[in-house]
Amino acid sequence: MKLLRHGPKGAEKPGLMHEDGTIRDLSGLVPDIGGEVLSDPGMGMLRALDPATLPEVAPDTRIGACVAGVGKLICIGLNYADHAAEAGMEVPPEPVIFMKATSAICGPNDPILIPRGSEKTDWEVELAFVIGKRAKYVSEAEAIDHVAGYCICNDVSERAFQTEHSGQWTKGKSHDHFGPLGPWLVTRDAVADPQALDMWLTVNGEVMQKGSTRTMVYNVPFLVSYLSRFMTLEPGDVISTGTPPGVGMGMKPPRYLRAGDRVELGVEGLGVQRQAVLAE
Amino acid sequence: MKLLRHGPKGAEKPGLMHEDGTIRDLSGLVPDIGGEVLSDPGMGMLRALDPATLPEVAPDTRIGACVAGVGKLICIGLNYADHAAEAGMEVPPEPVIFMKATSAICGPNDPILIPRGSEKTDWEVELAFVIGKRAKYVSEAEAIDHVAGYCICNDVSERAFQTEHSGQWTKGKSHDHFGPLGPWLVTRDAVADPQALDMWLTVNGEVMQKGSTRTMVYNVPFLVSYLSRFMTLEPGDVISTGTPPGVGMGMKPPRYLRAGDRVELGVEGLGVQRQAVLAE
Repeated sequence: MKLLRHGPKGAEKPGLMHEDGTIRDLSGLVPDIGGEVLSDPGMGMLRALDPATLPEVAPDTRIGACVAGVGKLICIGLNYADHAAEAGMEVPPEPVIFMKATSAICGPNDPILIPRGSEKTDWEVELAFVIGKRAKYVSEAEAIDHVAGYCICNDVSERAFQTEHSGQWTKGKSHDHFGPLGPWLVTRDAVADPQALDMWLTVNGEVMQKGSTRTMVYNVPFLVSYLSRFMTLEPGDVISTGTPPGVGMGMKPPRYLRAGDRVELGVEGLGVQRQAVLAE
Repeated sequence: MKLLRHGPKGAEKPGLMHEDGTIRDLSGLVPDIGGEVLSDPGMGMLRALDPATLPEVAPDTRIGACVAGVGKLICIGLNYADHAAEAGMEVPPEPVIFMKATSAICGPNDPILIPRGSEKTDWEVELAFVIGKRAKYVSEAEAIDHVAGYCICNDVSERAFQTEHSGQWTKGKSHDHFGPLGPWLVTRDAVADPQALDMWLTVNGEVMQKGSTRTMVYNVPFLVSYLSRFMTLEPGDVISTGTPPGVGMGMKPPRYLRAGDRVELGVEGLGVQRQAVLAE
């Protein structure tokens, strides 16, 4: 299933993408695409539906972030060996974990907002996964049972805020609209192998990132298990797994987003995000 | 006003501490002590009440975290010059920002849980403030209008997880029960000067931390304004402002919490937290 949320920001309704290409409304059946719906029983109920019987949503309706009520937006840093190299850093012996403010979450096609005073707003196409079942001290073998599904995250980053204003990356990762999620949450059963997905990102049509989750250092089951040693993962939490090479910071000379740019990004099977870049 | 939440974990109800020392129930009037109630209109409504007319709550009722639905739990690192010195670090030229997982939030007297494999679980008494009004690009002059009130936070920290397992402090700050908040949210009008509050922490009755918010490097209005450049602060967000000297990591030799220890901590006018230490 491809679950989504449609409607104006802050007033999104749950829905799904039907195989005939139409968006169907779920608001008569579930309150939202959040923690409860992402559980095994919630998913079972949705799977039993015939989407053709659900009301159709106008095709030009705005798509919101594909998960509601995200408690934690956790990111993994330097999780592709080739990206670590372009950032001038080593692959760490254990995953680097940082948080993005949940207030940064937005729809997949909402504009990227360049913060006031920013000169170094950058892009990062990433595979994200969404927790469906509480995870604490979970083994790698049982980890995948805790994943509801997958979506695209653009881990938009302000590099000066991230690294030139005293410690901790959160500062450069948390601006409004720095966390587009979606268009869909593709349920676990519909992704044959999350470690074999092509991914790409363009700016104004020019390919900047091209990679595959095959070269991810710490894979999804490892990350669920590892994170669950340090904090409890709850239904609706989102974990973004890091970016392949090709970010603006790694170019010679570095290249950053400017107002008027257009960003497009995709992960195989998870759809496409399209973002205009605006200055605040 | 001293606002609080009472009842079993996950099923807390809103209440307040009456000046006669009894807890009074607010659940007939407001849904919870969260974003909406913390706004100026919400506070005005509560101030107009006569607490003596509210139902009394049994005095041995559990007290929960004093804020519900916290979207972000933001912490400031190294914000006391003398604590930075004991940590062997400089006061940074700009505030260090990191996040604690909101799943770490618990009641002020809930036990501290030592994670599996932890040898370095440490304490940090802190003044926290709670946002009442959305803040984005706010000046220092108008910053205080965005603060609903103040509470104690014990920024419990696992030092090995924080600094010895590859980057970013979040990893050592986010375990369950690492974020006791309360007992009360003391409203802004009831705190004459947040930069002149004594604070202390004992372990098994022995004084470990003794300080004052007078020696805070970056004060509350500065922090509201500074943070609002990097992310939008929303009603119900909690910002914990850093700890004075006396943490276990800074002792020679270092001293950490063990199962069976008892921690008590207080900030002038904001009450006391009492925590038993348990191993997971």
